[in-house]
Amino acid sequence: MIKVGIIGATGYAGGELVRLLQGHKEAEVVWYGSRSYIDKQYADVYQNMFQIVEDRCLDDNIAELAEQVDVIFTATPQGFCASVLNEEILSKTKVIDLSADYRIKDVAVYEKWYEIKHKSPQFIEEAVYGLCEVNREQIKGARLVANPGCYTTCSILTAYPLAKEGIIDMNTLIVDAKSGTSGAGRGAKIPNLYCEVNENIKAYGVASHRHTPEIEEQLGYASGEKVLINFTPHLIPMNRGILATEYASLKKDVAYADVKAIYQKYYGNETFIRMLKEDVCPETKWVEGSNYVDINFKIDARTNRIIMMGAIDNLVKGAAGQAVQNMNLMFGLPEDEGLKLVPMFP
Amino acid sequence: MIKVGIIGATGYAGGELVRLLQGHKEAEVVWYGSRSYIDKQYADVYQNMFQIVEDRCLDDNIAELAEQVDVIFTATPQGFCASVLNEEILSKTKVIDLSADYRIKDVAVYEKWYEIKHKSPQFIEEAVYGLCEVNREQIKGARLVANPGCYTTCSILTAYPLAKEGIIDMNTLIVDAKSGTSGAGRGAKIPNLYCEVNENIKAYGVASHRHTPEIEEQLGYASGEKVLINFTPHLIPMNRGILATEYASLKKDVAYADVKAIYQKYYGNETFIRMLKEDVCPETKWVEGSNYVDINFKIDARTNRIIMMGAIDNLVKGAAGQAVQNMNLMFGLPEDEGLKLVPMFP
Amino acid sequence: MIKVGIIGATGYAGGELVRLLQGHKEAEVVWYGSRSYIDKQYADVYQNMFQIVEDRCLDDNIAELAEQVDVIFTATPQGFCASVLNEEILSKTKVIDLSADYRIKDVAVYEKWYEIKHKSPQFIEEAVYGLCEVNREQIKGARLVANPGCYTTCSILTAYPLAKEGIIDMNTLIVDAKSGTSGAGRGAKIPNLYCEVNENIKAYGVASHRHTPEIEEQLGYASGEKVLINFTPHLIPMNRGILATEYASLKKDVAYADVKAIYQKYYGNETFIRMLKEDVCPETKWVEGSNYVDINFKIDARTNRIIMMGAIDNLVKGAAGQAVQNMNLMFGLPEDEGLKLVPMFP
Amino acid sequence: MIKVGIIGATGYAGGELVRLLQGHKEAEVVWYGSRSYIDKQYADVYQNMFQIVEDRCLDDNIAELAEQVDVIFTATPQGFCASVLNEEILSKTKVIDLSADYRIKDVAVYEKWYEIKHKSPQFIEEAVYGLCEVNREQIKGARLVANPGCYTTCSILTAYPLAKEGIIDMNTLIVDAKSGTSGAGRGAKIPNLYCEVNENIKAYGVASHRHTPEIEEQLGYASGEKVLINFTPHLIPMNRGILATEYASLKKDVAYADVKAIYQKYYGNETFIRMLKEDVCPETKWVEGSNYVDINFKIDARTNRIIMMGAIDNLVKGAAGQAVQNMNLMFGLPEDEGLKLVPMFP
Repeated sequence: MIKVGIIGATGYAGGELVRLLQGHKEAEVVWYGSRSYIDKQYADVYQNMFQIVEDRCLDDNIAELAEQVDVIFTATPQGFCASVLNEEILSKTKVIDLSADYRIKDVAVYEKWYEIKHKSPQFIEEAVYGLCEVNREQIKGARLVANPGCYTTCSILTAYPLAKEGIIDMNTLIVDAKSGTSGAGRGAKIPNLYCEVNENIKAYGVASHRHTPEIEEQLGYASGEKVLINFTPHLIPMNRGILATEYASLKKDVAYADVKAIYQKYYGNETFIRMLKEDVCPETKWVEGSNYVDINFKIDARTNRIIMMGAIDNLVKGAAGQAVQNMNLMFGLPEDEGLKLVPMFP
Repeated sequence: MIKVGIIGATGYAGGELVRLLQGHKEAEVVWYGSRSYIDKQYADVYQNMFQIVEDRCLDDNIAELAEQVDVIFTATPQGFCASVLNEEILSKTKVIDLSADYRIKDVAVYEKWYEIKHKSPQFIEEAVYGLCEVNREQIKGARLVANPGCYTTCSILTAYPLAKEGIIDMNTLIVDAKSGTSGAGRGAKIPNLYCEVNENIKAYGVASHRHTPEIEEQLGYASGEKVLINFTPHLIPMNRGILATEYASLKKDVAYADVKAIYQKYYGNETFIRMLKEDVCPETKWVEGSNYVDINFKIDARTNRIIMMGAIDNLVKGAAGQAVQNMNLMFGLPEDEGLKLVPMFP
Repeated sequence: MIKVGIIGATGYAGGELVRLLQGHKEAEVVWYGSRSYIDKQYADVYQNMFQIVEDRCLDDNIAELAEQVDVIFTATPQGFCASVLNEEILSKTKVIDLSADYRIKDVAVYEKWYEIKHKSPQFIEEAVYGLCEVNREQIKGARLVANPGCYTTCSILTAYPLAKEGIIDMNTLIVDAKSGTSGAGRGAKIPNLYCEVNENIKAYGVASHRHTPEIEEQLGYASGEKVLINFTPHLIPMNRGILATEYASLKKDVAYADVKAIYQKYYGNETFIRMLKEDVCPETKWVEGSNYVDINFKIDARTNRIIMMGAIDNLVKGAAGQAVQNMNLMFGLPEDEGLKLVPMFP
Repeated sequence: MIKVGIIGATGYAGGELVRLLQGHKEAEVVWYGSRSYIDKQYADVYQNMFQIVEDRCLDDNIAELAEQVDVIFTATPQGFCASVLNEEILSKTKVIDLSADYRIKDVAVYEKWYEIKHKSPQFIEEAVYGLCEVNREQIKGARLVANPGCYTTCSILTAYPLAKEGIIDMNTLIVDAKSGTSGAGRGAKIPNLYCEVNENIKAYGVASHRHTPEIEEQLGYASGEKVLINFTPHLIPMNRGILATEYASLKKDVAYADVKAIYQKYYGNETFIRMLKEDVCPETKWVEGSNYVDINFKIDARTNRIIMMGAIDNLVKGAAGQAVQNMNLMFGLPEDEGLKLVPMFP
């Protein structure tokens, strides 16, 4: 049985990790870290866990935690993991960091977009970017995995095969993304109050959102060229779900079947990626509660562009689900253990 | 492996049965009955099931179905099951009817409230009212189970121990219930359109809702007296969830601990009933996606009344989950097989 | 032109006052008081007011304010108005207090339910309870009006004629109320976050909500007897609206027409109270954005109870709209000036 | 007093016309046309109008209607207006058509995108495209106005000044639009049920939505070149509101102040267009219930693109409000008569 410690167990992503790991046959949570709720019963914070989780919240003492567990998930604000990680910890336990601290290889890019001084850049090189469908083999051997962001998981996977195969002009790529409000976290802030979000939609972080360089880096690896994109996130009045609508000019004259074949080549054997039937547009509701990515595309001959669309549950494939998928890979377990989640509708 | 047939597989309750049975180790759905979508792929109707369910919808030929399956779930409009059921079917297969056809023992009461002529009253006597926590032993031996209504499951279980123990005046019982919109079904009706339900709340079926006599009958059995209640359902802008707020005058001078002990006596060993801690009010979100009933109460010394509150997911404990729980009992399986569902939050 | 000062102009009720007064021909806001946003442009806090309100927020110096305006609205937390009010202020300006400070005549009751020491009980006697349809004449001559609470406005008006005429047994009155989330205010609290409220319903303040004694006092005046009720508020995933469902036993054998006539007697000439047609249940959406109260009832001969239902927009008739209605009465203006608001649907 | 007839008064746009015209000093509705509800009281269909509108619904006899009114609004399905309009009607009354029948000058384009044979192409030339801020002078003299679509109003106005001044490369323009569900109309269709829309987002009509050629035509006039765009609408779980996020490459090296000045040049004197402060993103909630268009932009130096954003209430500026604005222009009234609507928040 894999012993799991979670730092940041009372945020929405942490809570989702707890939910998913309840159904995992080979792992059990033994440390519910939460600086805000130390000594409080976990199920008093998340009443859904009443009579399911009996534990109390502990502090975030990662050194002590490293002694006790096989893997640590850090579902913490940017900068935390980088500030506490050291070689001793990594020598004792595996770390899956759900923050952005080790996602970006160029520390200068990280420091510029996040406006934080990176406290342990020495581990950036070693850290594996935990996008399972792309970096599966490296993840298997990793000590430290940088779990991708929610927007980035959806944005990258939606375009990845076409970037890789060079059929889209990477200079034209535009990602217009829409997210449910759980992506904003459980902090008590006025803009996230029910009355401010309900019956409303807005863009935010326009031309400045921190997930931008992460998408650019990964799609740069795929396409073999430097990529600069426009990424625009929007806040949607729903709890869960991200939909990415992506636009790019086609470099080649391709038909539906050609593009379908490319996606099939990369994703045909993927458990968690579903290429939808022709003309079916992804809807976030159809993946809610599951680890699926639903993807489809439409070629517009009039404009010579392709419109790609991808949908995920931001807390599952966009955070906790992918983190568990990474854990499974790192420990040699079946990749879908604990993740055979049927989307809930309605 | 238990072979399952569902008639009405494309309604919301039918869809939830399909979802739950995907995770059931001892049962598999072999017949997806849907009059509206015959020959259509099930996953084209419920896109969440894409690459999970490969079957096509079949018609609702119950005679043929009885040959093929061990149990039939009828998630159909009132009157359907009564109109097709016969001894031959019941001799071949078990039937769990999610409609109201066999819930009410007095056929005159059924016909008055439902304004339907009952087509097979000969089975009413035999049918077991499938409220598992109350009728567990009878269910185990039943051929025909009448799966309780969503409002009724919540309303009855919330008050049952107090009715049974005679501490509330049954003549004063008032049930004010609130339901998410999935309870209204998937029919294309203007009052259920997004724009009509969103940002709105209303009572409906005031003093005339069909779940009233069902609650009255069952609480009558519990209390040993004829019960007449006021039951008022309300439509709430959410997909899932029922909250029942119930009021009754206390017949005895009781303290918190007394009432707590009574609930504990009846529900202390129940897997799916969670008696919350003192002063914690049930919230539908904390049971969403699960088979739990969350219950609590508050004594008001000023008015000598007790306020009881219960919350369920109307599609799970209020429909498909309880139906699976009944199936488990009927087939001698662990009662929670397929139902170890952790509520999803947020 | 009546000069208006608002203290607490950046809460939801304050914001609604600003919205309504924009359409008022005889009044203009000259002081936007907001302790939290001093010197900030009002339209930066409420972007809907961009290019409509050019003013900046001021502090809540009520003494200075009293020099400048004809009427002060205090849309402030409990205790504030009582702590700053004095004879000098009241000698210079009229005050309409949207908090509970002067609603309850018995200061001991106030102090018990609100757990606050009342700082200026000497004005309680003078204050007029500003439920316009009930206390119209007294309001006209008042210097100090206690604007009723949102739940109370709805709960009282729904039952008032029947209490007044003595046809319901006041000892049996139960008020089950449901409110949109704007009633919880604009404070940054986790329970009011979008993800906590959406897809959720809960009761709160069971047997202890502060609006209880206010309803009891007013219905006590109406019925001429001491009244104790059960009042249970619920939080609903919508921005605006309150629905009260009220239950009481009938003291007399009455028919629909009798009860209709009683409501007609009291409300037949009221601009803002709409008695709906038989069997039409009030829906909050039908009054959204307006000052209407929609009321109806249903007699249940089976239980000898009457179910009364009332719907309001909590921010209009439940707060700012009624405050403006009070101002109109106090200044001898047409009662509906600034309040000819057509409900917005959908 | 202008006498108004509405054909299609019981759709959402028709209902909004009724709401707005209640507050119009110079116009009154005398004909509530509704094929579906003939002889039914209008306020029974839209309960918000109870005791406000006493009229019954009439049929859609446009010939008779033309005798009685000064202006007819047709809020009807595509093809209806074209099928009934004739010279006699236009000689007697003005017509403001809220459908697409006269929006597109090239009848072949209309027939291709709408898959309808145009029944009265002879009036297309005469019809004025009723985008008030662009075609104000022509509208003043028009007999027949084609009221723009909701998506198109928002999409065009957001980009218009930049297209007109030639600073964006029209070949790169991409419009990603998001709409509340009222835009889908009041028809009883499964995809518009509450449970299907709530907690969900999807794109639809990708590369094929009918508003595409309308945007292209109008921005073509502005830019003086043939324009082909990608337009992708999305369905959002909210009642009202459209947000358009638009992307284009800059043809010139421009700074924030340059672009601001261009918008100012075109919209500086417009009552209903609000250019927001730098870095403030439009939110649909801030315009809800009003005729405002809130617009802003962000230059991304990294990609040399500009991101433009516009927000409207789809039922007001996107339908009924703009129709009233057109009526005001056609009858020489102040353009904002009946439209001094303060957005409602929350």
